[in-house]
Amino acid sequence: MLIDKMTSYEFKKAMFLYSGALREMNTKIQIINEEFALKQKTNPIEHIKSRLKTPESIIAKLVRRGYQPTFENALKYVDDIAGIRIICAFTKDIYILADIINSQSDITVLRVKDYIANPKENGYRSYHMLVDVPVFMSDEMSKARVEIQIRTIAMDFWASLEHKMRYKFESQIPENLNFDLLECAEIVSYLDEKMLLLNNEIEKYKV
Amino acid sequence: MLIDKMTSYEFKKAMFLYSGALREMNTKIQIINEEFALKQKTNPIEHIKSRLKTPESIIAKLVRRGYQPTFENALKYVDDIAGIRIICAFTKDIYILADIINSQSDITVLRVKDYIANPKENGYRSYHMLVDVPVFMSDEMSKARVEIQIRTIAMDFWASLEHKMRYKFESQIPENLNFDLLECAEIVSYLDEKMLLLNNEIEKYKV
Amino acid sequence: MLIDKMTSYEFKKAMFLYSGALREMNTKIQIINEEFALKQKTNPIEHIKSRLKTPESIIAKLVRRGYQPTFENALKYVDDIAGIRIICAFTKDIYILADIINSQSDITVLRVKDYIANPKENGYRSYHMLVDVPVFMSDEMSKARVEIQIRTIAMDFWASLEHKMRYKFESQIPENLNFDLLECAEIVSYLDEKMLLLNNEIEKYKV
Amino acid sequence: MLIDKMTSYEFKKAMFLYSGALREMNTKIQIINEEFALKQKTNPIEHIKSRLKTPESIIAKLVRRGYQPTFENALKYVDDIAGIRIICAFTKDIYILADIINSQSDITVLRVKDYIANPKENGYRSYHMLVDVPVFMSDEMSKARVEIQIRTIAMDFWASLEHKMRYKFESQIPENLNFDLLECAEIVSYLDEKMLLLNNEIEKYKV
Repeated sequence: MLIDKMTSYEFKKAMFLYSGALREMNTKIQIINEEFALKQKTNPIEHIKSRLKTPESIIAKLVRRGYQPTFENALKYVDDIAGIRIICAFTKDIYILADIINSQSDITVLRVKDYIANPKENGYRSYHMLVDVPVFMSDEMSKARVEIQIRTIAMDFWASLEHKMRYKFESQIPENLNFDLLECAEIVSYLDEKMLLLNNEIEKYKV
Repeated sequence: MLIDKMTSYEFKKAMFLYSGALREMNTKIQIINEEFALKQKTNPIEHIKSRLKTPESIIAKLVRRGYQPTFENALKYVDDIAGIRIICAFTKDIYILADIINSQSDITVLRVKDYIANPKENGYRSYHMLVDVPVFMSDEMSKARVEIQIRTIAMDFWASLEHKMRYKFESQIPENLNFDLLECAEIVSYLDEKMLLLNNEIEKYKV
Repeated sequence: MLIDKMTSYEFKKAMFLYSGALREMNTKIQIINEEFALKQKTNPIEHIKSRLKTPESIIAKLVRRGYQPTFENALKYVDDIAGIRIICAFTKDIYILADIINSQSDITVLRVKDYIANPKENGYRSYHMLVDVPVFMSDEMSKARVEIQIRTIAMDFWASLEHKMRYKFESQIPENLNFDLLECAEIVSYLDEKMLLLNNEIEKYKV
Repeated sequence: MLIDKMTSYEFKKAMFLYSGALREMNTKIQIINEEFALKQKTNPIEHIKSRLKTPESIIAKLVRRGYQPTFENALKYVDDIAGIRIICAFTKDIYILADIINSQSDITVLRVKDYIANPKENGYRSYHMLVDVPVFMSDEMSKARVEIQIRTIAMDFWASLEHKMRYKFESQIPENLNFDLLECAEIVSYLDEKMLLLNNEIEKYKV
């Protein structure tokens, strides 16, 4: 059981690796942001948040999905133990960042889910990448998976409300709230589109 | 001239006071946020940014307004040398925070401008407070002015684009861009309203 | 029992106050440091560490001293629930900082212990102040106690080894280790004295 | 001339690379520290400081050494444009850290200077490594040199005074001060030795 192993050396070492992978990924993203600032004179990234899932929420996720809460299942089925979220102003920056991450030779992209091109049923929009990140330790190099979520400011605002709703009602979300949430998602999407158009207009002008 | 005094002791001392007032105000706001988390189990504040105006931009502001760029004029006419920006998720949190800041007995509120109730012509929405903050030094207590801007995530997103536009075109903003900016401001306002309604709905439900 | 109350609102509110007092005190000390840099062109403070005692170690301290581990006893008998440590390069800076803290009109100094003039038997040197710090909340002003420890870099190095020793052996410290620890304390004290003399020599020279 | 190029893209790109290398190296060292904490239950590292040399001090260094202050000479002759300093409690930890850095497969150690085994004439003790660090950019991988200095708390304290002295007197240090500085270096060395012995004694005991 994972519960028994939460204080085990094996579990701590796994968490150390995930935490190391988060640090490496954070550093990479900051370097990418600075390179952008150098070349395009704009920072595409508004802010970055990273988090390690707690043992409790790893267990909860396994149970919710019908798996035994073992250490092995955690490594196998929980992809977002280490998660990093990148918030951009504009949708186009999301794809530019995704391309750059994709082209880094020491990172392996395992999977991509484009919930912007294909939003979830409830209106969720975000770009997800699952990557393998090398972590250099004293005597070996190991790899750990990090889930990267890239979204706009407006998508992130929406997602925080959606999370609050899911957290409160679990799977029993009242019909009318689901409807309102979807409506908000559409306004978010419309706002992002208009703001991007305006931004492109501004950049086109020679002054 | 301010330019001559930029390295003077007098100027450095003034900047030290503004910087101290910013630190004090930052600390206050973090304590308010934690008190909220304690009592309401939610954090009203998404993030806080603070900045000191550089001597260059103080001078630019004075010149733009037709004042001589002297040290005395800087203290007298530039209210936002020390600025702090508080970003909330929901409009209602803005007014709650403003009330709490207003009720702090060691802070003096000098002026309030509610650009949410009365948006600027171009669509700008934000709640501004100008306050006097005590700074305790080794041998005396002094006061320094801080401009506090409180706005929602969506208003802040809009404002960053408006700033970029103003910075690029100065007063010569093309008519069509101004029109688009105003349209975006209305979508922002509509989104904030819808998200707040949905949030209130979620909170009303007993689960 | 404190143990029962660890998740109570009453306990959380007390911890919130201690944490707020730490933030306020930290801000004060940073402002003092910047004022110094402005006036003397040197920063007396090398670094600042602050920490809140965990409920577990509050209980342990009460039990060790023969008190019931209740919430009331914690507030009454544990003076260092909120602790802040200031590390200086030179002994003279310790007394300058203590004077400045003492003269702040919004802080009440409750007690002073000068373990530099009067080292503990095992060689421990440090300057301790117990102060009451105002914390401004939304509807009231409250006070919380903070223990301030001011020491030199060398005293701090020694203290970390002394702490490790006490933690390992509790009250059963082998005689020879105690002897070696005292010898180290004397070298520390000698080094601090020599470094201060050299520093004063350097500052005396006009170049 | 470097002076002309300080605002050039070429110079900014070089500084971006050095800054990226510092970030990468910082991340590496934090991961090493956490791995240590995991395996030995102690953190060898007290703190880490990193800094980029300003253009002004790069020029000053080139001039002092008799080189033209050109961009090419900066890259060629100034090894410590990007510098990182690791402070440990005990001398033995310095060598353990150096070994680990040395064994990282993506880092190339260009040069080592062991000023602990062979102190400088004035008493300076520290372990220096010059390394090449890979920096992954959007379309290529580049390398940048970082100078790593590893020293104990006591060595670092001494070095800050030595730096102050050198900064004040440049090459004209009064004889008696040089003598006192050397004496302090010997006390530092004696203290480090005694503290390490005591630490080893403490660790040997089974409790």
